[in-house]
Amino acid sequence: MSNGDIFFGELIGTAILILFGAGVCAAVTLRFSKARASGWIVIAFGWGFAVLAGAYTAAPLSGGVINPAVTFGLAVDTGVWSKVWVYLLGQITGAMIGAILCYLVYYAQFAANVRQTGTTEGTADEPVPTLGIFSTIPEIRNPIANLMTEILATIALVLPILALVGDDRKVEGIGIGLIEGGGGIYGSGIAILLVSLLVVGIGLSLGGPTGYAINPARDLGPRIIHSFLPIPNKGTSDWGYSWIPVVGPLIGGLLGGVIYNAAF
Amino acid sequence: MSNGDIFFGELIGTAILILFGAGVCAAVTLRFSKARASGWIVIAFGWGFAVLAGAYTAAPLSGGVINPAVTFGLAVDTGVWSKVWVYLLGQITGAMIGAILCYLVYYAQFAANVRQTGTTEGTADEPVPTLGIFSTIPEIRNPIANLMTEILATIALVLPILALVGDDRKVEGIGIGLIEGGGGIYGSGIAILLVSLLVVGIGLSLGGPTGYAINPARDLGPRIIHSFLPIPNKGTSDWGYSWIPVVGPLIGGLLGGVIYNAAF
Amino acid sequence: MSNGDIFFGELIGTAILILFGAGVCAAVTLRFSKARASGWIVIAFGWGFAVLAGAYTAAPLSGGVINPAVTFGLAVDTGVWSKVWVYLLGQITGAMIGAILCYLVYYAQFAANVRQTGTTEGTADEPVPTLGIFSTIPEIRNPIANLMTEILATIALVLPILALVGDDRKVEGIGIGLIEGGGGIYGSGIAILLVSLLVVGIGLSLGGPTGYAINPARDLGPRIIHSFLPIPNKGTSDWGYSWIPVVGPLIGGLLGGVIYNAAF
Amino acid sequence: MSNGDIFFGELIGTAILILFGAGVCAAVTLRFSKARASGWIVIAFGWGFAVLAGAYTAAPLSGGVINPAVTFGLAVDTGVWSKVWVYLLGQITGAMIGAILCYLVYYAQFAANVRQTGTTEGTADEPVPTLGIFSTIPEIRNPIANLMTEILATIALVLPILALVGDDRKVEGIGIGLIEGGGGIYGSGIAILLVSLLVVGIGLSLGGPTGYAINPARDLGPRIIHSFLPIPNKGTSDWGYSWIPVVGPLIGGLLGGVIYNAAF
Repeated sequence: MSNGDIFFGELIGTAILILFGAGVCAAVTLRFSKARASGWIVIAFGWGFAVLAGAYTAAPLSGGVINPAVTFGLAVDTGVWSKVWVYLLGQITGAMIGAILCYLVYYAQFAANVRQTGTTEGTADEPVPTLGIFSTIPEIRNPIANLMTEILATIALVLPILALVGDDRKVEGIGIGLIEGGGGIYGSGIAILLVSLLVVGIGLSLGGPTGYAINPARDLGPRIIHSFLPIPNKGTSDWGYSWIPVVGPLIGGLLGGVIYNAAF
Repeated sequence: MSNGDIFFGELIGTAILILFGAGVCAAVTLRFSKARASGWIVIAFGWGFAVLAGAYTAAPLSGGVINPAVTFGLAVDTGVWSKVWVYLLGQITGAMIGAILCYLVYYAQFAANVRQTGTTEGTADEPVPTLGIFSTIPEIRNPIANLMTEILATIALVLPILALVGDDRKVEGIGIGLIEGGGGIYGSGIAILLVSLLVVGIGLSLGGPTGYAINPARDLGPRIIHSFLPIPNKGTSDWGYSWIPVVGPLIGGLLGGVIYNAAF
Repeated sequence: MSNGDIFFGELIGTAILILFGAGVCAAVTLRFSKARASGWIVIAFGWGFAVLAGAYTAAPLSGGVINPAVTFGLAVDTGVWSKVWVYLLGQITGAMIGAILCYLVYYAQFAANVRQTGTTEGTADEPVPTLGIFSTIPEIRNPIANLMTEILATIALVLPILALVGDDRKVEGIGIGLIEGGGGIYGSGIAILLVSLLVVGIGLSLGGPTGYAINPARDLGPRIIHSFLPIPNKGTSDWGYSWIPVVGPLIGGLLGGVIYNAAF
Repeated sequence: MSNGDIFFGELIGTAILILFGAGVCAAVTLRFSKARASGWIVIAFGWGFAVLAGAYTAAPLSGGVINPAVTFGLAVDTGVWSKVWVYLLGQITGAMIGAILCYLVYYAQFAANVRQTGTTEGTADEPVPTLGIFSTIPEIRNPIANLMTEILATIALVLPILALVGDDRKVEGIGIGLIEGGGGIYGSGIAILLVSLLVVGIGLSLGGPTGYAINPARDLGPRIIHSFLPIPNKGTSDWGYSWIPVVGPLIGGLLGGVIYNAAF
C-alpha cells in the first residue's frame, strides 16, 4: 500500500466513522430528531455500525484501522512503526472532516438549539449542551479513574482484534493494514463485522463511566471542530478533560499489543 | 441477466423492502399494533432487515439493488447506463406494490384509524396521521438542509457499498447487478447482510432530521399509493416535500460513484 | 436422511424454537421476570434467535425446517411431498414439548400468577392472562383481515427462504431438508443466521396486527398444551381463533412456493 | 494444545467475558452510568457480545470454551476428560480477574454508591445493592424451580453448540478445544458469532427467572470477588443461593452432552 492510499483510506474511513458516530449522538441528543431520547441501545449499536461503515470503506485502501490506538497495538505486535504517522495523519484529518459532515447532516437541528417556547402555556425547552455529540464527557470527573476506564476499555478492544487478525495473517515488512488474502485488515470479510459487534459490546458494557472514547482521533478531532463550529448555545469544549481520551486509549493500545505478544 | 429477470427481481425485491419498511412504521405508529410506540431502535432494525429480506430475494434475478440511488452509483462506477431504466422501472413498480401489501397487512389497523373513545371517562384517542408510514417527513422543514441531509446520508450508503462490491467483482459489460461468482450483487453471501446492517446504522445515526429516504423509489412509490388509499383520516400526502427525497438520494448516489472512482 | 432422523431433528429443533419463543413472551409478560415489560424489540429478537437456536440444532439431522409452512413451500418448490408428513409430525410434537419446557423454566413465575398485594397501601397487581405467552392473539379480531395478515407475513418468510436456498442447492429426490454440501438446509453455515434475522424483521414489521404466527406448529402445539397446563388464572385458550394461525401460514407457504416457481 | 496455552487462553477469555458481562450489569445498575436503566435488551446483547469478545480472544490458544458447563458437555460428547481440570482452572481464575477488572472500570461509580442528596429539596437516592452486577439473583427464591431453570437454560446452550461443532470437526484424542482447521473451537470463523447470538437469545428468552448463570465460573468467580471488594453499601454476597448457579449449569452441561450423543 502506498502512503497515499493509506492516508486517503484512513481519512475516508475515519470521516465515515465520525459522521455515523457523532450522528447517532446528535440523533439521540438534539430536539427535532426522530431518534430523540431513544436510549443507550441506539448509541451502542450506532457506534458499532459506524465502525462497520468506516472500516469496510477504508479496507481496500488502507486495511481499515481508523483508530490510532489499534494502530499502536498493531505496531507493537508486528514491530513495524515506519508507517504509523501516515495512519495517524489520515485518522485525525478524517475525524475532523467527519465532525463537519455530522454538523451538516444535523444543520437545521443545530440551528434550532435555542430556547423553545412550549405549546403548553408557560413551559419552554432549554437548549442542550452539544459537546457530548462530538466528544466524550465523563459521568464522574476523576482523572485517575477516567484514565483507568479508558485504558481498560481500549485493551478490551485491541486484544480481541489482535487475536482475530492472527499471527499467520501478518505479513512482516508491511506491519499495519494487512489486506492481502482477504477483504480487509483482518484477513476475511467477516472480521470487520466481528470488530463492529465487539465495539457494540464495549459500548454496552464499558461505556457507562466515560462514554468510551477508546480512539484518540474519535475524541480529539471532533473536539477541535466543536470549538470552531458556530452552534448556538454550544457550551464548553472542555479542553481540561481532553487529554484523557487521547492518552488513555494510546496506553491501552500499547498494552494490548504487549499482552498479545506475551501470551499468544 | 435478461431485462425480464431484472425487472421482476427488482419488482419483487423492492415490494418486499417496502412491505417490511412501511410495515415497521405502521407497527410503531398505529393504534392496535403490538409494537406501538416501541421506539427508534425498532424502526432502524426494521428498515435494515427490510433490505435484507428484499435484496436477498431479488439477488438471484437482478442482483438485489432495489434502490435507484445505488443503481446510479453503480452506473457511475462502471460506466454502464444501458440497463438503468429497467432497474428503475422495476423498483418504482415494486415500491408501489409493497405499499399496497403493507396496507393489506395492517388493513384492520388502518380501518380503525378513527376517533377512539377511551375507557377512562372523558378521554379519547385522536386518529394518527398516516403519511409517515409510507413516506418520509422532515422534523424541521428546510429544503436546503433537508436536501443536504439526504445527499450526505445517501453518500454514506453508496460509497461503502461500492467499496464492498470491489473492482475485481465487477464484470465489464454488465455493469449493474453482478451475481456471477456469488450469491448476490456484492459477490458473496454476506455482502447483503453487511449492507443491511449499514442501513440499520444509517437509520440510527443519520435518520434523525428527515427520516432517511436515501432511496427515491422507497419514498415516491408509497407516496403515490398513499394519495389513493381509502384510509380514514389519512392526512396530507405532502407533495410539496416529495421532490427532496427523490432528488437528494439521486444526487447522493451520483456523488458516491464519483468519490469512489476518484479515491479507489 | 432417514425418517427417524427427520422426525427427531424436527422434534428437537421445534422444541427449542418454542422453548425460546414462548420463553421470551413469558419473560416480557410475567411478573417476577427480570425482562418484564422490556418491549417489542425484545420479543422480535427473542423469536429470531429462537429460530437460530432451533434450526441450527436440527440442521444436522433434518435440515432445520421447524415450520410446516416452510415445509409446504419447499414441497411446492421441489415437487416432493412424500416426507412432508414426517416433518409435520416432528414439528407439532416438538412444539408441544417446547411449550412444556417453557412452563418448567418459568414454573415459579406461572405459580405466582395470582393476585399480588402491592407494597403501596391499597394497591394490588392482578394476574395476567397467559395465552399470549403460548399462542398468538390478534389486536383486532377480524377473521378476514387476520387471515390476510398471516398469509402475507408467511409469504414474506417463505419466498426469501426459497430464494436463499437456490435451485442448484436442491437435490431432486430428497426435496425437503437439504443438508449435503453445507451445514444446514440452506447449503451454507450462514443461511440459517440470515433466516433468523429475517424472522426478527418479520416480527418488527409485520407482527403488529396478529403477533405473527407464520408457523402452524408454533401456534397450535403450544395452544394445546396451554389448555392442559395447571396455571393459576391462565384465562381462555381461545379456540375460536385457533384456525387462523394454522390455515393462514399454510396458505402463505403454498403461495410462497407458487410465486417462487413462477418468477425464479 | 499445551496445558499452558489452554490455561492462559481460558483465563484471558473468561476474564474478558466477565469484564464485559459484569460490566453491562454495572452499566445498567449503577448511578452515574450513561447506560443507567437502559433495560433488558442492553443486558442480553451485552452478555452475548461478552461471549463474542472472550471466546474469539481465547480461540487461538484454547478453543474459546470459557464455560465449565460447555467444557462438561464437550467432554461427555468426546469421552475425553483428561484436560477438563485445566480448562476449569483457567476459567475460574479468569472469572475472578474479570470481576476485578470490572470493578476498576467502574471504580468511581462504585465509590459513589452512597446516599445521594437529590437536587429536588427533600429527595435522596439510596445506594443500590451490587451483587447483581457480579452474580445472579433469582426473582423468586425457590431452589427446585431455580435449579430447573438453570438446568434447562444450560441444555439450551450446550446442545446447539454441540450440534454446531459437529462430529466430523472433533479430533479424537484432544477432545475439548478444537481449533485446527478453523479460527475457533467450532471449526469456522462464524461459529463463535453464532454462539454469541445464541447467548443473546438465552438471555432474552430464558433469563427472566434467575438471570441465566448457565456458566458456573461466571457466577462463582465474581461472587468470591464481590465478597472481598471494598464497595460501599455493597450488600450481601448471598452464599446461600450460590450453589444453584454452579450445580445447575454443570448438570445442564452433562445432560446436553448426553442428549446430543443419544440423538445425533
